[in-house]
Amino acid sequence: MNPVPTESLTTTPDPVRPTGEELDHQRAAIAALGHELRALVDATVRTATPPEVLHRMTDEVRRLTGQLTGRRRARAEIPAVDEFPGGVRMYSPVTGPGSPLAPPMQVTPDGDGVVGHCTLGIAHEGPPGYVHGGMSAMLLDELMGWACYAAGSPAMTVFLQTRYRRPVPLETPLRTHARVTGTQDRKILVVGSISTEDDPSVALVAADGVFVTPDPDRARALFPDTP
Amino acid sequence: MNPVPTESLTTTPDPVRPTGEELDHQRAAIAALGHELRALVDATVRTATPPEVLHRMTDEVRRLTGQLTGRRRARAEIPAVDEFPGGVRMYSPVTGPGSPLAPPMQVTPDGDGVVGHCTLGIAHEGPPGYVHGGMSAMLLDELMGWACYAAGSPAMTVFLQTRYRRPVPLETPLRTHARVTGTQDRKILVVGSISTEDDPSVALVAADGVFVTPDPDRARALFPDTP
Repeated sequence: MNPVPTESLTTTPDPVRPTGEELDHQRAAIAALGHELRALVDATVRTATPPEVLHRMTDEVRRLTGQLTGRRRARAEIPAVDEFPGGVRMYSPVTGPGSPLAPPMQVTPDGDGVVGHCTLGIAHEGPPGYVHGGMSAMLLDELMGWACYAAGSPAMTVFLQTRYRRPVPLETPLRTHARVTGTQDRKILVVGSISTEDDPSVALVAADGVFVTPDPDRARALFPDTP
Repeated sequence: MNPVPTESLTTTPDPVRPTGEELDHQRAAIAALGHELRALVDATVRTATPPEVLHRMTDEVRRLTGQLTGRRRARAEIPAVDEFPGGVRMYSPVTGPGSPLAPPMQVTPDGDGVVGHCTLGIAHEGPPGYVHGGMSAMLLDELMGWACYAAGSPAMTVFLQTRYRRPVPLETPLRTHARVTGTQDRKILVVGSISTEDDPSVALVAADGVFVTPDPDRARALFPDTP
């Protein structure tokens, strides 16, 4: 056995951050697994298969989880494949291509704001056939955060007001839009909306938000593990 | 081959609704699979395993999804194991024991309102180490809907205002509370909050909502497939 230097027992070494082709390769593998897990999630919440099959599946899923051995990141650790703040977040529950929970929403610049495209399945159901109201808030909160970043100020939500005008259909391509409308000291005012791709002029859900850029001391206190 | 009666090609037969022990057995199998899938989701978003392992996992997940053969429910169909409105919803993305996405939050009556208990993992991360702001809105929206139901009026959100006072920590037992504060015709006014179990008097997030009970014609138009 090799002797273990004392400091390795008390400090966590920084994970090696991949670059270039290696980073692309890692992200592609994470996204491919995310894609298949989302298909498994969809099949699971739709199936009417008998309990015997579900129990067999349960055993297989447990076995599969056991194969993900090796290092697991800690609670507040930024994954080595991510950029933070404001960049790629592979496991974001809204935009992450590696997240089994995310639609994932694809975010692109759009005029003076940002636009998000996604389609939500039955796993995100609230009332039968429609998107969970909280999921609509989640799409908006995320995209309005991107609007802040696009305007030059990564920020956190302090206030979000969501008006549900019509139910948002499942399995229908959606278009979410957000843009900054003003700033007051550290506060950033943002508006957002969700519509269908087919009828982008009709806002099914509309939102107003106030975001705040934490001052450096506050940011360090909240995120001690970030660079 | 047996001849297929014409009507079975054009109408979907109602799924047989299980009862008693059979229902318990089905729900237990769904919850067991949900539990293992949540563990797989957590392991997936934490792992730093190499791309080769991820690609092998991807193939296995695809194979597993293929085993969920048989009937799949349609977009707005209520699962045979559910009660709607206001009862058990096995695949709810917030409370469903069968949902790979749900914490799942456990809801119980509490004085003049309802309380929800859950712990959120890294899969629900927004800022590093903290719950996604949209996920907090999702917990509140769901629980405030339960508060309406507990007060005798199943209803849908039309307005939700969320104030984020402090970040909500991941991997920490949370307590969400909601209660109806008043009604105006079909409108139901509801308040909600999220705190930690350790410090329930400090609201990390506070919300006000307006919910509306759809009139019978509107309900039929929105939910044509419900009983």
